[in-house]
Amino acid sequence: MKLSNVISDYVGCAQWLPHYNRQWLASDIVAAVVVTIMLIPQGLAYALLAGLPAQVGLYASMAPLLAYAFFGSSRAMAVGPVAVASLMSAAAAGQFAQGDAALFYQASVALALIGGAVLIVLGLLKAGFVANLLSHPVVGGFVSASALLIALGQLGALLGISAKGETFLQTGAVLLSKFDQLEWHTTLIGVASLLWLWLVRKWGKGVLKALGLNGLALEITFRAAPVVAIVCSIVAVSVMSLTQVRTVGVIPTGLPGFFFPTLIGAQWVSLIVPGVLIALVGFVETVSVGHALAAKRKQRIEPNQELLGLGAANLASGVLGGYSVTGGFSRSVVNFDAGAQTPMAGVFTAGGILLATLFLTPLLTNLPHATLAATIIIAVLGLIDWHLPKMLWSYSKRDFAAYLLTVMVVLSVGVEVGIVTGVIFSILALLAAVSQPHLAIVGQVPGTEHFRNEKRHKVDMVPGVVSVRVDESLYFPNARWLEDSILELSTSKQGTYALILQCNAINHIDASALESLEKIDENLHAMGVTLYLSEVKGPVQDQLALSHWYASIQPRIALTHLEAIDLAKKNISEHAS
Amino acid sequence: MKLSNVISDYVGCAQWLPHYNRQWLASDIVAAVVVTIMLIPQGLAYALLAGLPAQVGLYASMAPLLAYAFFGSSRAMAVGPVAVASLMSAAAAGQFAQGDAALFYQASVALALIGGAVLIVLGLLKAGFVANLLSHPVVGGFVSASALLIALGQLGALLGISAKGETFLQTGAVLLSKFDQLEWHTTLIGVASLLWLWLVRKWGKGVLKALGLNGLALEITFRAAPVVAIVCSIVAVSVMSLTQVRTVGVIPTGLPGFFFPTLIGAQWVSLIVPGVLIALVGFVETVSVGHALAAKRKQRIEPNQELLGLGAANLASGVLGGYSVTGGFSRSVVNFDAGAQTPMAGVFTAGGILLATLFLTPLLTNLPHATLAATIIIAVLGLIDWHLPKMLWSYSKRDFAAYLLTVMVVLSVGVEVGIVTGVIFSILALLAAVSQPHLAIVGQVPGTEHFRNEKRHKVDMVPGVVSVRVDESLYFPNARWLEDSILELSTSKQGTYALILQCNAINHIDASALESLEKIDENLHAMGVTLYLSEVKGPVQDQLALSHWYASIQPRIALTHLEAIDLAKKNISEHAS
Repeated sequence: MKLSNVISDYVGCAQWLPHYNRQWLASDIVAAVVVTIMLIPQGLAYALLAGLPAQVGLYASMAPLLAYAFFGSSRAMAVGPVAVASLMSAAAAGQFAQGDAALFYQASVALALIGGAVLIVLGLLKAGFVANLLSHPVVGGFVSASALLIALGQLGALLGISAKGETFLQTGAVLLSKFDQLEWHTTLIGVASLLWLWLVRKWGKGVLKALGLNGLALEITFRAAPVVAIVCSIVAVSVMSLTQVRTVGVIPTGLPGFFFPTLIGAQWVSLIVPGVLIALVGFVETVSVGHALAAKRKQRIEPNQELLGLGAANLASGVLGGYSVTGGFSRSVVNFDAGAQTPMAGVFTAGGILLATLFLTPLLTNLPHATLAATIIIAVLGLIDWHLPKMLWSYSKRDFAAYLLTVMVVLSVGVEVGIVTGVIFSILALLAAVSQPHLAIVGQVPGTEHFRNEKRHKVDMVPGVVSVRVDESLYFPNARWLEDSILELSTSKQGTYALILQCNAINHIDASALESLEKIDENLHAMGVTLYLSEVKGPVQDQLALSHWYASIQPRIALTHLEAIDLAKKNISEHAS
Repeated sequence: MKLSNVISDYVGCAQWLPHYNRQWLASDIVAAVVVTIMLIPQGLAYALLAGLPAQVGLYASMAPLLAYAFFGSSRAMAVGPVAVASLMSAAAAGQFAQGDAALFYQASVALALIGGAVLIVLGLLKAGFVANLLSHPVVGGFVSASALLIALGQLGALLGISAKGETFLQTGAVLLSKFDQLEWHTTLIGVASLLWLWLVRKWGKGVLKALGLNGLALEITFRAAPVVAIVCSIVAVSVMSLTQVRTVGVIPTGLPGFFFPTLIGAQWVSLIVPGVLIALVGFVETVSVGHALAAKRKQRIEPNQELLGLGAANLASGVLGGYSVTGGFSRSVVNFDAGAQTPMAGVFTAGGILLATLFLTPLLTNLPHATLAATIIIAVLGLIDWHLPKMLWSYSKRDFAAYLLTVMVVLSVGVEVGIVTGVIFSILALLAAVSQPHLAIVGQVPGTEHFRNEKRHKVDMVPGVVSVRVDESLYFPNARWLEDSILELSTSKQGTYALILQCNAINHIDASALESLEKIDENLHAMGVTLYLSEVKGPVQDQLALSHWYASIQPRIALTHLEAIDLAKKNISEHAS
């Protein structure tokens, strides 16, 4: 393989960097300003949600943007800490560290490194399809339930109550039992921030437009609104010396250094499953954000390239002491709307956050946790798709069951167990559907060469010939079902001498199904019934030709169903004469 | 539900008992004699293989036959101890008991009771399809590898060496290292028995026919041949007082009593997984034997009825202190060939074994283990399908991989892990196949209304219209693949204004795929391309009608692909004008 091919295959920026121009530069810088303003409070807040010191959120907001810019394929993606990955990271690291803060941090970094490595391996193997095991109902249920868990957990910080529970009910019970310990100043700041953020989200753009703002000025002002809450609460705490309000505290100024967790082998191994889950959930979010944004500009993203980009972002985060990152939905949309043309916007955003880390952090000492909690609550409640359960209920009870199960288990047991349960349920439900396909006895529609279901259409049947259509590929989950069904059909009709399987809906026949077809053939033969196949698809016939059964069945395969009937009639009359 | 319906639904013998006649009685008695002669040595041998006292094999050969006769649906099935279930039972009980013989026995009985209960519950739920998760390559690999494990394990008994290892290699290594401890008398008896059984199997019928025997006399004489080896070895040991040869020893005469394992809750729970696995593997074997025999007489078996029959058989076995039983292949074929007409033959067989248990067991004290080991080795080597790996290799590499993986894990780790690994691999392989279906760009075959793959046929394309056929139902594993593929297609062709998805091979659209179709629709729209659907199947359109997307897509669904193209052309010209 030539080096240039390797680069264009594996380095996403090869697509745009050579064409980079001054116009893109201007757009990217403007987008970077908007996103930086948005990301600083988000980075701090999500780090606290992940159970980490606030500055770790800033660290995790820089290097990943650079790594993604180099390897990723989406033009407007903004990677960094997000709510759900922060919650998953906190849950996994918490279970691992059992209260040891140093170990907790090590585990958080290790999770990012493991996730990054897994994503890169999947990307190199072009195996992004594994993320497809996360079905839409499972992801939807998982995100909604996680958002509820996060919001309830942040309610404690908002009210100045220390309330940490393992499950939704536990956390709720702790909150209720400690409700009398509510800290009034904290609550006031928290509720005011919440109200402000909610009002801005709901009416902000309208009010700004009414004030005559539009375009970029509107966008920047709108995005800066959360900063107002932050500035006001810092001022309130500082001026009134509200020592009873819990704040971020002193954040170390300066750049993060290189970091590598000093864990032993077995500890790494125990973090693999949660690391993989966080990475895959993040990947699913990243890809769906990427698709949506790319389509708006008639661009495409390459999922396997996204694996490399997101993997590199997580490795970069971990190596510099950050934690798991994802391509976030809201920040990417903001980046896109603010006009970002290339991932260079991310590079500038990283620069902006770097400046903040170097010079602004001393100002954040008095930033109350309650304000950050309000930021998180507003962000995560926006993640919940309130219409999804109703939509699933009316569309498919099976999908609704997967959704409900995931929500219940996430809320009552935990995020990891919840998503794994949901995935296993979806797979079993799929296998159950495949294992009992729709089967129709077909007959000829008078005056045509078409054969249709005798239950839905008025059709002509040939005496002694049973025509069966199976609407599914033949795999091991339905192989024995096929044996049972066909034998039942042929014993239920007296005087049957031929059974024709119409194969137009069969896209695969695996070895189990081949074995079953052979057995059906033998068993039918033992009953004096001859098996015929019609309308076998090209690739399926190619594969059947590899089996030793083919020599026996080949003369009984007909191109069309009508030909198969003629063949059966001819054979029986020759046999009789 | 009326009582008579309940009976005919759940009691298999309701099908034949009311019609029982003298002719069937005669046939059944003769078959019972043949099977009894065959089952006595097998029962003793398999009990030893299961790590249990020899008489437990006889206990497990009586009550199950009665229970099956009452509930089962196959006419000629013979249930009892079989080789693979004995090995699985020994492995599970051994791991559970950790060397405690009393606990080992309790666990063996508990496994039968758990398996029986699980099968009955599955039968009542009509959920026999779960056994379909055991694909043909996995079962084939599992049985072959188990047979190798068993044969190697019995080689120790044959040579008078005590060689027990966890895995194939371990057992082999122990055998080799202890080869100098080989006991000559035992080896002589063992090898002579093995040779005799092999010669009988290979040439026996031919020789007997040459001697003028045929029909029933031939069958009885042939089946009695193993008894010759047993009688000869007992005589040899008794006459020469070969105390160095390990023998069955004193077997308690008389009937088994009721027995219930005195295990605590957690102990029962730890036996559930192996109990379920043994039951499911046994069920798969029972059903495939049942189908094969039923077809020869134009009868049918009812898989859910078989669950009840086999479940009752296992409960009956356990309640009387026996262990896990299965519908055995060889004994059922012998029963069938000997003319068994109804499960009443099984009742008579049970009577024959009862007589043996009461009166013959004192004669078996000097029966050498080596002779029984020879019986087992000949039986299990017959279970191996030596052609299967070659057949799978040429037919499907994916199925071959499932086979090979199962064999390797059974031999190197153990039977339970092996079968679970095989099942998980098959499911993932199926999902992988479903996740990347065959996709064809289709065009019109000149002079017809047919649309076929442009790569395989010479077809006409309409400029600006891309026609795509997906050869698979749309499920969550391929939902995102669909998004990627369709977006790639529509960005790769300049000047595209319509994309038509031909849905004739789509049997289901789940909620994830619906979401993807909606996104595809939106993303295509953002690119100025309109999505159309053609040839949507009735049930699929019914389901789409339940979605809120239907209002938007419904005007863009056409009955035939040609109509969809006309619709697209019409829409674009209206739009242009």
